[in-house]
Parts: sequence; structure tokens; C-alpha cells
Amino acid sequence: LEGMILKIYKFLYKAWKLAVAEPKKVIHGIKVGLAISLVSLFYYMRPLYEGVGGNAMWAIMTVVVVFESTIGATFCKCINRAIGTSLAGSLGVGVHWIASHSSKEMEPIIIGASVFVLVSAATFSRFMPAIKSRFDYGVLIFILTFSLISVSGYRVDKLFEMAHQRLSTIAIGTSLCIIVSMVVCPIWAGGELHQLICLNLEKLACSLDECVAEFFKDNKISSAADIEEDCRKKMLGYKCVLNTKATEESMARFARWEPAHGRFNFRHPWKQYVKIGASMRNCAYCIESLSGCVNSKIQAPIHLKSHLKRICLRLSTTSSNVLKELTSTMKTMKKSSKIELLVGEMSFAVEELRNAMKSIPNHLIITTQSSSEAHHGEANTEPITKITAPSPFMEIIPLATMVSMLIENAAR
Amino acid sequence: LEGMILKIYKFLYKAWKLAVAEPKKVIHGIKVGLAISLVSLFYYMRPLYEGVGGNAMWAIMTVVVVFESTIGATFCKCINRAIGTSLAGSLGVGVHWIASHSSKEMEPIIIGASVFVLVSAATFSRFMPAIKSRFDYGVLIFILTFSLISVSGYRVDKLFEMAHQRLSTIAIGTSLCIIVSMVVCPIWAGGELHQLICLNLEKLACSLDECVAEFFKDNKISSAADIEEDCRKKMLGYKCVLNTKATEESMARFARWEPAHGRFNFRHPWKQYVKIGASMRNCAYCIESLSGCVNSKIQAPIHLKSHLKRICLRLSTTSSNVLKELTSTMKTMKKSSKIELLVGEMSFAVEELRNAMKSIPNHLIITTQSSSEAHHGEANTEPITKITAPSPFMEIIPLATMVSMLIENAAR
Repeated sequence: LEGMILKIYKFLYKAWKLAVAEPKKVIHGIKVGLAISLVSLFYYMRPLYEGVGGNAMWAIMTVVVVFESTIGATFCKCINRAIGTSLAGSLGVGVHWIASHSSKEMEPIIIGASVFVLVSAATFSRFMPAIKSRFDYGVLIFILTFSLISVSGYRVDKLFEMAHQRLSTIAIGTSLCIIVSMVVCPIWAGGELHQLICLNLEKLACSLDECVAEFFKDNKISSAADIEEDCRKKMLGYKCVLNTKATEESMARFARWEPAHGRFNFRHPWKQYVKIGASMRNCAYCIESLSGCVNSKIQAPIHLKSHLKRICLRLSTTSSNVLKELTSTMKTMKKSSKIELLVGEMSFAVEELRNAMKSIPNHLIITTQSSSEAHHGEANTEPITKITAPSPFMEIIPLATMVSMLIENAAR
Repeated sequence: LEGMILKIYKFLYKAWKLAVAEPKKVIHGIKVGLAISLVSLFYYMRPLYEGVGGNAMWAIMTVVVVFESTIGATFCKCINRAIGTSLAGSLGVGVHWIASHSSKEMEPIIIGASVFVLVSAATFSRFMPAIKSRFDYGVLIFILTFSLISVSGYRVDKLFEMAHQRLSTIAIGTSLCIIVSMVVCPIWAGGELHQLICLNLEKLACSLDECVAEFFKDNKISSAADIEEDCRKKMLGYKCVLNTKATEESMARFARWEPAHGRFNFRHPWKQYVKIGASMRNCAYCIESLSGCVNSKIQAPIHLKSHLKRICLRLSTTSSNVLKELTSTMKTMKKSSKIELLVGEMSFAVEELRNAMKSIPNHLIITTQSSSEAHHGEANTEPITKITAPSPFMEIIPLATMVSMLIENAAR
């Protein structure tokens, strides 16, 4: 029993921590509760109410199933539900009409065959990317409504009345959803996406800085343990960027359903955000290789490190400055005048590093001859070029595309 | 109109191509159609049937919502639905009992408040990772059932009868789903996951081979265009590995719900598959950096390339042999005797490459002095170590962990 209480306590503690960390999720919970209570009370108070399985059910069900945490997603589901229901309703009535005008024996066969064929085709169409990304939920509702109508249509003549009632309850449910989600603390998918991208850009800049600094740090033991912990956290920021692909794509999809709001116009280029996300993931791959070098046991000898330290640090600073400037550009959504200057600085640093690399071989030989062979020969060229190779060339390519895209984006 | 017809034709063509490429999806569609037709006909034939909104609806709805493409997912949803319905049912009856024993004015307040609080809490709990990964659907059903019961409970005394009917129809729906999904061409999540991982391993091996070969190819223009195309496809195989994280995780989650089947025991280590997937993704990051080098405009001079060509190719062959051997180990699920030999060969190749790297500086200087400075100085050290640096060290670390995990896995 005690273990049970402890488990429940732990669960509640976790829930509390999540609630404090992300109050938006609590607000969403409250909004859903509010919407359902409103619908319930609406039907609860109505004198027309007539027993279980009436229309109240459909309104409540609509609210439960349709209400999503962002406005775009709610819109998308509402529209899907409306389209799916009306399409399936008209088709179902059509099939029912054909069946009722045929002979008595043919009726179940026609209905059974039409249900089988249409449901199979609709289920298969849910696997197609074009349908899946936009109308997945609509097709599900289509299947549901169509099979309900073709079964229930058999013995009732009130088919049209039923269709009318169902459509009106769904309309009540969806409109209530949209009103509640837009009036009480609205959470826009577009805004969330914008924030996510900004945050990820910042994280990238930080971890790039940290990684390079960590690589060139001379004595790793001297720094305090808690600072070390902090650095590690910053360094691992790029990992988040790697895993947000699905979130970004679904948000961009929902954002397209949203009306103009705040600083975003109606035809805001949401697809650009997905592209920016992709090039950010490319950057993150580079940082992943960089951090592999940092954690590798074989490190470059100190004299080589110190030779390139200044230039590499400069390069990483300039690149992360570009990233940070891009972040602030994103935030203010204005074209920044400084960005071209910073990109110029970065390219200059790349050039410098390239020149420094050219001069290495001679240096290397001189030091090799003076130092003992055994001490030095271990792995001198690998780590040094490990750090420099990914850093300038590969980083620059995605960065450049990102810069051009962001400038385009900011210009709007 | 013609544009419309063309669009429909294109859509149908795409659907046909998808159907030919993945017949499993067509089979799933047919299975859903079959299950729904069966349920429809079952209720259609029943003499007890009494008008719209009866019980048939719940059975059909259960089948539509619960039927998923893999057996594990169907099981998971069925169990979630059963638990959610019964829990919400008992709670709803309890709240209704309390409300009916209080004063007339308090009744709507008690019901409204309980709906609001419970629905808000349940919606919030859906955001918690522990709940989301296993009981997301169950909580949704809980919300739905609870609000339906508390609203409908107001004016009917047949609450228990209704609960009984609903549970029985849900039982009919779920059992039919499980029977159809297991009897007609079963698709196991576990088997799919196993196949996916095998395929990805193969792709990784191929693209590693292709990347290194492409880098050391002397004249890129001479080869025929269609062979080139084929190579490119193989090289890009690793990109699939990067994007399958979500699929792998959800499949592993569903696979745990499945009973023993085929070659998989009841407690098959499905979590291992997720770990293997993670280390495969690490490998794919390395190949990503490698292919960055291949596509980079600045290439190493030919004499340096030819110096390392043999050893690098050997290394890539041995590593991809290890990967291929791992694939066949996975497929047969038996411990391979050759694997240790191959790993040994790979480590040997790594050693060899390291030695070759040590001897470069001297070589480099000799050739530098003999060749013209302008021709040579462009970027000699970068690309060469770009290829070697990621290849041996970083590749080996994830590979080693993968090997150990797979050996562990195969031993079962």
C-alpha cells in the first residue's frame, strides 16, 4: 500500500512540475473542461431533451474529439468533420435510395457491398501522403458516418430529419469549440511554431559556441563542477533541434488553416519555416560531429591547438553571432541591417582559417622534429582537422542558405 | 473540367502505384471494410433492432475507431477503450448517485462542477509523457464516456441497463476487430519493426560503401548517367534512417502489447530495437558528414587520395561487411560466428589507417616541394582528413555499441 501511495505522490509531483513548467497545457485542460461543461449544461437545461442517445451526445462527442491545443488544429478538425459528415451523409442517402428501389432480396447485398467497397477504398486512401497530411480525420469521419447511415437507414424513414439534427448538433459543437479556443487564452499554432524556431536558433548558437570553446579549453579539471554541468546542458541544446522535425511539420500544416492574427498576415510563408527547420537540422548534424571530436579520447597536441585556437574561436564567435542576429531578426520580423556585415565577418574568418591551415604542414614538421616522435605521433592530424573540417565548410553551406531564406522571410 | 479530370487521373495513378508498392496497405483497407460489413450485417439482420441511435451505432463506431493497421496497435486501443469506458462509467454513476441524493438546486451544480474538474484534469494528464505513450486514447474515451453519462443520467433511470448494453456492444466490436485483424493476413507491429531495422541496416551499409567509393572515384564523368543515378540513390539511403525515429518508437510501444507470435517470444526485448535505432542514427550522422565531403567543391589532390585510397576503401568495406553481417544476424536471429572475425578485421583496418595517417606529414612535404605551390596549396589537408577523421573514430564508437547490443539481442 505504501508503495502505491509513493507512486501516486511521485505522479502528482511530476504533474505539478509539468504544470509549472508549461502553464499553457493547464490552460488547455481548463479550456476543454469549460467547453464540455458549457455544452453539457446547454443540453441539460433544454426542455426538449428526450432520453439517452439523443442529440446531446453528438454535440459532446464533437467537442471531445475536435478540441485540440492549437487553434489551427481545431479549425482543421472542425472543417474535416463538417466535410466528412456532409459527404458521407449525401452518399449514404443516395445508396439507401438505390437500395430501397430494388427488390427486397437485393437490398442487404447492395448495402453490404457498398459499405465494403467504400470503406476499403477510404481506409486505403488514408495511407496516401496527400490525403494523410490534410484530410486524415475527415476520411475517418466519412467512414463512420457512411456506415452508420447505411445501417440505420434500413428501418427508419426519418433519415432526412436525423441528418438535419445531426448536422445542427455538430454545428453547435464545432462553433462552441472555435469560440472557446479563440476567446479564452488563444494558442496559435503559427505563434508556437515561430517561437520554437527562434528558440532552436538560439540553442544552436549557444551549443556551437560551447562546443568550440570546450574543444580548445586547456585544463578541463580546474573549472567548477556546476559550471561544467551548465556548459554540458548548453552543448546538448542542438539535440533538441534534431528531434523537432515532426512537430515543426505538423505545426506548419495547422498554421496554414489559421486566419490572420497578431503579426502574422493571412498568407504568411509557413512553408519557409519548415525549410528553415531543415537547414537548422543540417547545422545540428555538423555540431553533432563537432561534439564527437570534443568527447573523443584522442586530442590534438597542445601546440597545434594553440596555433589554431584564436582563429577557430573567432570563426565560431562570428558564426554564432550570425545565428543570434538571425534569431533577433526572426523575433522582430524586420530586416536587419547588421546581418550582411556579420556574414561578411564570418566569411572573412573562414578565409583566415583556410590560410592558417595552409601554413600548418611546415609548422607541423618543425615541431615534430623537435618533439619526441612517440609523444607526438599518436594522432596529430585527425583531431585538428576534425574540428576545422566540419566547422568552416559544412557549416557555411547550410548557414548561407539559411541566411538567404531568412532575409527573404524577413523582407515580407 | 479537363484539368479536373487530369487531376483525378493523377490521383488514381498515384494510388495505384502506392498499392503496387505496398500491398499491405490495400490488405488493411480490405480488412477494415470486411470488419465493418460484418458488424453492419450482424446488426442489420437482428430482429431486435429498434430504430436510430440504438446499440448498433456503438459497435460500428468501435470498429471504425479501434481498427489499426498492426495487431499491437489494435490491441492497445481495445484495452484502452475497455478500461476508459468502465472507469468513466463507474465514476459517472457515482457522481450521478451523489447528485441525485442532494437537493434539487444543487444537482446541476454538482454535475457541472464534477464534469469541469475531471475533464480538465484528464485533458491535462494527456500531456504527461507517461500517460501519453500508453493511455492517450483511453483518457480520451474516459472524457467522452464520463461527460455523456453525467449529462444523460439526468432524466433516465435506465442508467445501469444502458451501461450494460454499451459494454456488451463494445465487447462485440472489439472482439470482432481482434479476430479479423489476427485471422486475415495478420500484420504484427513487432515483425514490421524487425523488418524496418533490418532494411535500415542494409541501407546504411550500402550508403557507407557508396560514399567512400564515390569520394575516391578518379573520373566522375566517364561513368554512365543511369549508373550514376543508381549510386546516388544508394548513397541517400542513410537519409531514411534519420527520419524513422518516431515510427520505430511507436512500433516498439505497440509491439509490447502483442502476444508471442512466429519467431518472437512473449518477452522479446523490444526496447533493444529502439536503442539499435538510436545508434543507427548516430552512424547516419557520420555518413551525412562523409557525403558532405563528397559533395564539397574542394577536393583533396590526387596523389594524397591515391595514398590513402586502398586503406580507406578497405576500412569502408570491412565496416560495411560488419553491418551486413549484423543484418543477416538480425534476420536469422542467431548468433553469428563470423561477426567477431569481421569486427577484428575492421579494427585492424582502423589501426592501419591510423598508421598511414602518421606517415602523411613527411610524404606531404616531399610532394609539396616537388609540385608547384599554387596547384597544391589550395586545400590539401582538409578533405583528406575530412574523409578519414569521421570515418574511423566516430563510426567505430556507435558501431561497437551496436555490435555489443546486437550480440546480446541475438543471444536470446
